[in-house]
Amino acid sequence: MIVAMKYKPKESKMKSQNKFFFVLITVLLFTVFLDAKNDNKVLNLMPVPVKVELTGSKFRLDSTFRIEVTGKPAERIYAAVSRTLRRLSGRTGIFLSQDYIQPNSSVKNPAMIINVERQGIVKLNEDESYKLDVTDRIIRLTAVTDLGAIRGMETFLQLLDADSLGYFFPTVKIVDYPRFPWRGLMIDVSRHFMPVDVIKRNLDGMAALKMNVFHWHLSDDQGFRVESKAFPKLTEMGSDGLFYTQAQIKDIIKYADDRGIRVIPEFDLPGHSTSWFVGYPQYASAFGPYSIERKFGQFDPTFDPSEAKTYLFLDKFFEEMSKLFPDEYIHIGGDENNGKQWDANKEIQAFMKKHHIPDNRSLQNYFNKKLLAILTKYHKKMIGWDEILNPDMPKDIVIQSWRGTESLKNAAEKGYHVILSNGYYLDLCLPASYHYAIDPEPDSLHLNSAQQKYIIGGEACMWSEFVSPETIDSRIWPRAAAVAERLWSPKSVISVKDMYRRLDRISLELEDLGLTHIKNQDMMIRKLANYGNVEALTNLIKVIEPVKNYDRFVQEENFTSYYPLTRVVDASVPDPQEPRYFAGLVNDLTQKQANNDGIIKKIERLLMIWKDNDKQLEKTINRSPMLKEVEPISKELSLVSSIGLQAINYIAEDKKADDGWVKESLMQIKKSDAQAGQVELKVVQPIEDLIQQVLNK
Amino acid sequence: MIVAMKYKPKESKMKSQNKFFFVLITVLLFTVFLDAKNDNKVLNLMPVPVKVELTGSKFRLDSTFRIEVTGKPAERIYAAVSRTLRRLSGRTGIFLSQDYIQPNSSVKNPAMIINVERQGIVKLNEDESYKLDVTDRIIRLTAVTDLGAIRGMETFLQLLDADSLGYFFPTVKIVDYPRFPWRGLMIDVSRHFMPVDVIKRNLDGMAALKMNVFHWHLSDDQGFRVESKAFPKLTEMGSDGLFYTQAQIKDIIKYADDRGIRVIPEFDLPGHSTSWFVGYPQYASAFGPYSIERKFGQFDPTFDPSEAKTYLFLDKFFEEMSKLFPDEYIHIGGDENNGKQWDANKEIQAFMKKHHIPDNRSLQNYFNKKLLAILTKYHKKMIGWDEILNPDMPKDIVIQSWRGTESLKNAAEKGYHVILSNGYYLDLCLPASYHYAIDPEPDSLHLNSAQQKYIIGGEACMWSEFVSPETIDSRIWPRAAAVAERLWSPKSVISVKDMYRRLDRISLELEDLGLTHIKNQDMMIRKLANYGNVEALTNLIKVIEPVKNYDRFVQEENFTSYYPLTRVVDASVPDPQEPRYFAGLVNDLTQKQANNDGIIKKIERLLMIWKDNDKQLEKTINRSPMLKEVEPISKELSLVSSIGLQAINYIAEDKKADDGWVKESLMQIKKSDAQAGQVELKVVQPIEDLIQQVLNK
Repeated sequence: MIVAMKYKPKESKMKSQNKFFFVLITVLLFTVFLDAKNDNKVLNLMPVPVKVELTGSKFRLDSTFRIEVTGKPAERIYAAVSRTLRRLSGRTGIFLSQDYIQPNSSVKNPAMIINVERQGIVKLNEDESYKLDVTDRIIRLTAVTDLGAIRGMETFLQLLDADSLGYFFPTVKIVDYPRFPWRGLMIDVSRHFMPVDVIKRNLDGMAALKMNVFHWHLSDDQGFRVESKAFPKLTEMGSDGLFYTQAQIKDIIKYADDRGIRVIPEFDLPGHSTSWFVGYPQYASAFGPYSIERKFGQFDPTFDPSEAKTYLFLDKFFEEMSKLFPDEYIHIGGDENNGKQWDANKEIQAFMKKHHIPDNRSLQNYFNKKLLAILTKYHKKMIGWDEILNPDMPKDIVIQSWRGTESLKNAAEKGYHVILSNGYYLDLCLPASYHYAIDPEPDSLHLNSAQQKYIIGGEACMWSEFVSPETIDSRIWPRAAAVAERLWSPKSVISVKDMYRRLDRISLELEDLGLTHIKNQDMMIRKLANYGNVEALTNLIKVIEPVKNYDRFVQEENFTSYYPLTRVVDASVPDPQEPRYFAGLVNDLTQKQANNDGIIKKIERLLMIWKDNDKQLEKTINRSPMLKEVEPISKELSLVSSIGLQAINYIAEDKKADDGWVKESLMQIKKSDAQAGQVELKVVQPIEDLIQQVLNK
Repeated sequence: MIVAMKYKPKESKMKSQNKFFFVLITVLLFTVFLDAKNDNKVLNLMPVPVKVELTGSKFRLDSTFRIEVTGKPAERIYAAVSRTLRRLSGRTGIFLSQDYIQPNSSVKNPAMIINVERQGIVKLNEDESYKLDVTDRIIRLTAVTDLGAIRGMETFLQLLDADSLGYFFPTVKIVDYPRFPWRGLMIDVSRHFMPVDVIKRNLDGMAALKMNVFHWHLSDDQGFRVESKAFPKLTEMGSDGLFYTQAQIKDIIKYADDRGIRVIPEFDLPGHSTSWFVGYPQYASAFGPYSIERKFGQFDPTFDPSEAKTYLFLDKFFEEMSKLFPDEYIHIGGDENNGKQWDANKEIQAFMKKHHIPDNRSLQNYFNKKLLAILTKYHKKMIGWDEILNPDMPKDIVIQSWRGTESLKNAAEKGYHVILSNGYYLDLCLPASYHYAIDPEPDSLHLNSAQQKYIIGGEACMWSEFVSPETIDSRIWPRAAAVAERLWSPKSVISVKDMYRRLDRISLELEDLGLTHIKNQDMMIRKLANYGNVEALTNLIKVIEPVKNYDRFVQEENFTSYYPLTRVVDASVPDPQEPRYFAGLVNDLTQKQANNDGIIKKIERLLMIWKDNDKQLEKTINRSPMLKEVEPISKELSLVSSIGLQAINYIAEDKKADDGWVKESLMQIKKSDAQAGQVELKVVQPIEDLIQQVLNK
């Protein structure tokens, strides 16, 4: 009677004669199948747990709801339970009477009992499994460690539901544990600095999605972001004053630990290191002076691997950082070293000859091995991007695969632990469905099961060329949730449609944690409209998205780290909801033959709004010069919507269009698929589909 | 040809024969009057400067815009100028090419020159004056201190405007300086803790409105919020882990100083001190143990003024705090000591007898004098609430008048410096117009000019019983801007209508600084609607407001510091815009006799929406039990809107209603003016005005 959510039938096909059988079983086992016919009863769990068994009843929430913690958890559980209580009362308005929960305090008549066997440690491979058993009288959450209990509390909160009688939890039995032990989010705080509150709210978002590694890209050409007491000029000269103090770092690590999240610092070496050399030019491979890089791309400044003083510097630096960051891993970057400074430096060339180092790749490997010795001395393990993979390196390093699945395969075959990031780059503004389809263990690699064990997870990556504290959440959320589900849920959970259904819901719930991905769009639109009427601009922004992949970078190569990120492109979000809704309507129209009138009306309504929108937007553009750059997109929207309206008219009247109209329309549609102001229309494809439908009549 | 904005004519009454004269003067002086007929040209400055002279041309903004700083400013100016550049590019999308500004860097062809005579010091009575001269070729901002320049940059940013050609600044000559040197905002972080980012964004809001004192209410019964290294148990036991580390305090002080804002810490003594005694019960006037107070109100725990150890403790404590907080003033609270612990303590009674202390008031004065000696020892001056005023106290203390203007008068007459807070309590949810009408030097007090000099300003106060980090901005902004204007602008600036016009604009601009008063309402509505359709709920929330004064407290006396602040009342805001707009329409209808059709249509449209809203809201309530409590208000809105529609119908048709209808309607309206869910309808009065209009036909 156990149903994993993925097997939930889309439409119940039970015949009535079967129903008796089911009712019988229900009565016997006091459980019922998840009734997928009734959408209100479909669960909103994300990531999907391993096993979910609905038992057909309800646990009613009221102000007497109290939680008791039993067993031997680590102290972090108490704050976590208090947060759960506050989130529960925040979402229901119920004045839960239970105060902050303290260790060893007994609770009278608890409605929920959380039992934990032992203290969890926030480290790789810690047990995160939990079982959640909701009956109509009591809720039991059991876990080996408090980290498992913390994962389970997120599931518990996602179960909250309401009917006209009040708030309730559906009774359910859940068994759950992660597919991969390494489920990360990387945030680049060098190219644009992200203040503490940005990091904290994203840690909350990660915890809600059961992610457990925060990979903190702390240094790059554009800024060095950690206070070093040994080398204060790193931030004094290399950060524009935008960095984390060690107290702030500790605060964030504690905050992450409280949520069962590891913090892995990345110091990118030997390339991507301009910001180090502003204060310490003596460790670069060419003479300074250096200044903080304002542009984006690959730059020449690189550590000098031929000088002993370089390693003395790095030894002292990593000694300090090893104490500051408790995780056993430190990320040393290692990517995109262009080797130009090395080629041009005679002493380095002589050094290579003397030590029989044939090329830059080997020189970097020499550097990495020296670094490894330093990290090992301070009881740390190394993780780095693809480029650090080399047969000389010991097997306890971790490779982060970013350039393709080849390196994933390569690492796993050679017996290196590896995590996948290729395909999980959130900054490329690709749809959630794209990331969702990428599995860290793709069948195409033909790895055997022993090799597959070396693939230990993945990380969504948020590079920050084009994001500010105001916009970054909208580039991470909700799409990172699709990656989180891929890394937690069973491999067989693959329904894109159901993923989006839950994603749109989770996206709203994430606002509860302070994430600004929805509300900041409204705010940016108000500003873009120069404080005038926002309707037309909102209509436009809801159907566009930023250009994808590296197009923005290519189109704006002179962009600097201080240019405005407040334009229409910044207010638009990747994978917007409305075009997905529209495409869904068009798709429904293809599927169904009967009862299409309702769908046709909805499509028509949207197309009418879009067609007329440009006229309205003109007024807004006149008072807000910032909007001029998207004028062509607005006109395109009007044009393609006109065509769409003609198409839907043919479909509504069940008429065949003449070939001339179809040809002409398709041609215009193709032409319309352009970009302006670094955004593109997202509704062109479904409108083309409408025309195809007319053609197929 | 100098026009202070306050003298701006509402409607130009120039006759055509006068126009020639004006054109002549214009030509002669190359300046034009502010043309109030054309709303687009009306400036949005808040607070209103002392003198504004528009000179009729435009300075066009483009990417070459660069600022040079000359003279001898303090270092804070450079970051302030960089912030100005980034805000400017953020609001215009223009890629300003100027990088971060460094001291002593020369700027080629600057478009704006900021000249500062000397370094400003962030302290009472520092010079904050500035002159801003915008011509069509260059902008000059001159000030005695960098603090004046920082004030002037806010004015400069408020001048930004746009037309179809692009962004520009109107050419203008502004002379400006504050009316009062003490223009504060108090935030209570004890009853609900406010994290660092909340404080920082509010400091930004203050700076935008030229406020210069952040009064930080750091301790009270419900929590002690500052790390003390001398007495760590203050936060370990008295804060639930919610406090500022000393590093965070320093960071905030620096942030405030960068914006020309003084930070004055308040440690409320001898009452309102429960949280101190959780860790240190030995200094209370009754035996412990104590626990953090969860309720709100006046409580008994009070410092023991009869014991020497109390003063040893406070001496050490204030020694530490005097170093941490650089401002010359420390606020010692002193309010609402109920004296019960003193009355019940035999040793204290004996002490009073022995020292001939007749009553509790005198005992508190004894305590204050001991405190004063401690503060003086650490080179600090004392500020406290009304209650500390006593003839024994020296003249360099400052009195904060909260209970009424009597204490203001009393202090000024006796030669004490005094600031006004009575009438500026933002937590009472009163309209901006109420606060705006309160002058720190009311004529009614009949003070002579020597006495008036003792009145040095005022402070808006935000007590935090009913606010969370999510809602506090909406209780402070935009209304605090009305207080800010009262304290900066000339006394004669009193037009409520013009204040609201500018307030609504500034409110939107404040979002730029990260303030969440608008966007969080949308977010809370999404949650309240249980992630369903928000339309009906939004319609309702836009026309209600929280109950005023202490009604919320009275209605919910069992409220605790951990109860949810996510209800409809919390999403609603004081002094909402839409009812003001509606009342304006009704008022316009009264004023004009001709050309009413447009106004009538607008009124009708709103009333129709409100009348039908309840039906829609029912659906939302069914899926979101949290909304049940405002069902009566929704039905009231429907009812009064029906009546309003009948009234507008009579008016539109120019018919006289029968007396029965009028009587019945007024009676129903009166009944409808009720409260539910701690909110009330804000459109009842204008609808009543409509009925009165029918009556007056």
